Amino acid sequence: MKKKPIPTKIYLTEDEMPKSWYNLRADMKEKHEPFLNPATLKEVTAEDLGHIFCDELVKQELDQTTRYIEIPEGIRDFYKMFRPSPLVRAYWLEKELDTPAEIYYKFEGNNTSGSHKLNSAVAQVYYAKQQGITHLTTETGAGQWGTALAMACAFYKIPLDVYMVKVSSEQKPFRREVMRTYGANVIPSPSDTTTIGRKILEEFPGTGGSLGCAISEAVECAMTVPNSRYVLGSVLDQVVLHQSIIGLECQTALKKYGVKPDIIIGCAGGGSNLGGLIAPFMGEKLTGKADYRFIAVEPASCPSLTRGVYRYDFCDTGKMTPLAKMYTLGSNFMPSSNHAGGLRYHGMSPILSKLYHDGYMEAVSVEQTKVFEAAERFAKCEGILPAPESSHAIKATIDEALKCKESGEKKVILFGLTGTGYFDLTAYKAYNDGTMSDYIPSDEELKKSFDTLPVIE
Amino acid sequence: MKKKPIPTKIYLTEDEMPKSWYNLRADMKEKHEPFLNPATLKEVTAEDLGHIFCDELVKQELDQTTRYIEIPEGIRDFYKMFRPSPLVRAYWLEKELDTPAEIYYKFEGNNTSGSHKLNSAVAQVYYAKQQGITHLTTETGAGQWGTALAMACAFYKIPLDVYMVKVSSEQKPFRREVMRTYGANVIPSPSDTTTIGRKILEEFPGTGGSLGCAISEAVECAMTVPNSRYVLGSVLDQVVLHQSIIGLECQTALKKYGVKPDIIIGCAGGGSNLGGLIAPFMGEKLTGKADYRFIAVEPASCPSLTRGVYRYDFCDTGKMTPLAKMYTLGSNFMPSSNHAGGLRYHGMSPILSKLYHDGYMEAVSVEQTKVFEAAERFAKCEGILPAPESSHAIKATIDEALKCKESGEKKVILFGLTGTGYFDLTAYKAYNDGTMSDYIPSDEELKKSFDTLPVIE
Repeated sequence: MKKKPIPTKIYLTEDEMPKSWYNLRADMKEKHEPFLNPATLKEVTAEDLGHIFCDELVKQELDQTTRYIEIPEGIRDFYKMFRPSPLVRAYWLEKELDTPAEIYYKFEGNNTSGSHKLNSAVAQVYYAKQQGITHLTTETGAGQWGTALAMACAFYKIPLDVYMVKVSSEQKPFRREVMRTYGANVIPSPSDTTTIGRKILEEFPGTGGSLGCAISEAVECAMTVPNSRYVLGSVLDQVVLHQSIIGLECQTALKKYGVKPDIIIGCAGGGSNLGGLIAPFMGEKLTGKADYRFIAVEPASCPSLTRGVYRYDFCDTGKMTPLAKMYTLGSNFMPSSNHAGGLRYHGMSPILSKLYHDGYMEAVSVEQTKVFEAAERFAKCEGILPAPESSHAIKATIDEALKCKESGEKKVILFGLTGTGYFDLTAYKAYNDGTMSDYIPSDEELKKSFDTLPVIE
Repeated sequence: MKKKPIPTKIYLTEDEMPKSWYNLRADMKEKHEPFLNPATLKEVTAEDLGHIFCDELVKQELDQTTRYIEIPEGIRDFYKMFRPSPLVRAYWLEKELDTPAEIYYKFEGNNTSGSHKLNSAVAQVYYAKQQGITHLTTETGAGQWGTALAMACAFYKIPLDVYMVKVSSEQKPFRREVMRTYGANVIPSPSDTTTIGRKILEEFPGTGGSLGCAISEAVECAMTVPNSRYVLGSVLDQVVLHQSIIGLECQTALKKYGVKPDIIIGCAGGGSNLGGLIAPFMGEKLTGKADYRFIAVEPASCPSLTRGVYRYDFCDTGKMTPLAKMYTLGSNFMPSSNHAGGLRYHGMSPILSKLYHDGYMEAVSVEQTKVFEAAERFAKCEGILPAPESSHAIKATIDEALKCKESGEKKVILFGLTGTGYFDLTAYKAYNDGTMSDYIPSDEELKKSFDTLPVIE
């Protein structure tokens, strides 16, 4: 019998959308080490976290055992605005590469945030609204998370302060404007609106800021404004939980078409997209139901998995947040300013760090100019202008597909196309003009950064 | 029996996508007046047009009788990259307006051109490729058409020169960069690369250019470069034909859900989106099978239907293109520079002009600040940041829905959401900053422009 050809884009119906998130931790025999209270260095309690996050999210953050957590109807209704997202068969890229491999990508960019970030933003704002929270704060670097959160806050009518890394807010005035259009108050960080911001400005006048510093300011702001909470777009377990909808939709769509991936590839900054994409597949691997190769792709200029250390570290520069056991370059590490786009975070999701450490996942780092080369090649044949972050996954996918070409293997590759590059054209321009360069931190630079890590026990 | 609820987003399957375009002219008892050769003022022949357009497109341009024209498989394959586009039930906008009306929109922005323009770009480049054409030229104003064409040319590997209205290329450097990323050569117009460009530069040094002028340069370039042709993104009958896929998909989706629109609304610049959206519905109206209200929405600053004259005019400033009988403000008319986004063209599709003239369609004009007010209201509840062009249709839709609220009528409104506003944030910023203003040309200004119209017979 002739197999039915697979359509270019596979959309689930709204009825087929997942009704629960999948909590990968429930299937990890060994959990990651607990977060530590930065003051006492003891395991954080729900009460500790309750000052920063709203209650339902604290519960999700600490829940290591419930396998499926129901997605409230209100969140599912919002999801329908932009989900299900398409799973695309990259016929044209396959043809361009002349590879026997089958390539699929899950495209999360069809929404105004231009990325997968909205999946968790909606959830976090929904729970805040349910709890009667009347103000939220966050930080944003490249701006996708800030935009996603501004959209969710506009919908649920909650005022939002976004601390945007100063250099990004200057390089990306349009990102800032989208957030403003959705009603958010965008503050370039470091700013004089917080104690930590003023301290950093005094110490480093004229600094362009960093994500770690913006997190500190946002957390301080949330703890100062009455009835406010802080929300975070990556790294945390709750974020990986919410993002599992990416992987769950992939799983349903692939099953529907009788396709089983051999390799699953995603870019990794803080780990939100990669964690969400691989979650249900990793669950199958951990429980012996199936086997997959997982590849995390990170920038050579900010290589937390491939060159970082697996240690306890702060999640922010101001050392106000809980400590996490994770792969880290040190909370003071600043990726080179020539590095475009996101994936600039010093650490990595504790869940992914643990899985990588235990050998369930591989990681590679790729150089920036090669990433943009892959991005343009992809754009020209598949139509979509990819975000620089997503293009890391494209680069690794092309490499794997070309290996298949050499070996003649007909592997099935699935990668996460997290978003679009419409707000990254300054970087594309640098690439087009031939002025983009690569930067790889030296061993000395990294060692110096590791020396500043906190010593626990 | 309880009616099945309509999902938020209605996607057709790829199998359900139209296999033919619908040629509205076949159902118009009275056709629009023929195009005239600018040199002889006689009806254009296929041979005349063949110097500018490639053969298959000339055939389509002149075909007034074939009701359905097959979409070649190659074009259908490309369409699958970004189509079918979703038909969205605007539940949240309905709630926001507290209206008994049902609102649907066809969203054409889910592709890198950010608009419906890709529907015709693909077709035009495909036929050029089939004919062995090795170079294409076009003009672009706001940049959606240029981007769409750059994408299609990258895919079919045909070099492309885009004459971009100079003031736009300066205001929208990122639009320019997207085109460059897809390999197009973008030339700010007027330029010194053409005779007409040099002439205009000499006459008006420092001018920011206009769409009519960029068309002239692109046509001249196509006629100078060997084996080159010119392609146009609006106004022409062939474009309305290709864009009919928007309306056809709407029709199929609405039938599937048992919904019949009462009012169909679209923004109108040159008429490509509006013509495509309404085509099959207008066909039903013309043949007495159904009745609908059609509303064309144009900017108050460039009001060709509502304040223009129905006369023969040139399609470009340089008077190189065929003359069309259409609603026009005069080919020298320049909309105020404070007008943001597209919809700046002096004329209007001859098909739509004829239908409007014969009373089958209504038209309204709306002011810019009201358009952006509607855009932000829409963005905050429906999630999508709309293009300024599309927001004209949103404004008129909101007005109609509010009328329903007053009258208690449960009308069904369908509008075309042609694209996204990601490259229009300078305009959004002006609106957010309160510096955006409205401009309405005076009667004297228009009269002066009408006086320059060519006198035919």
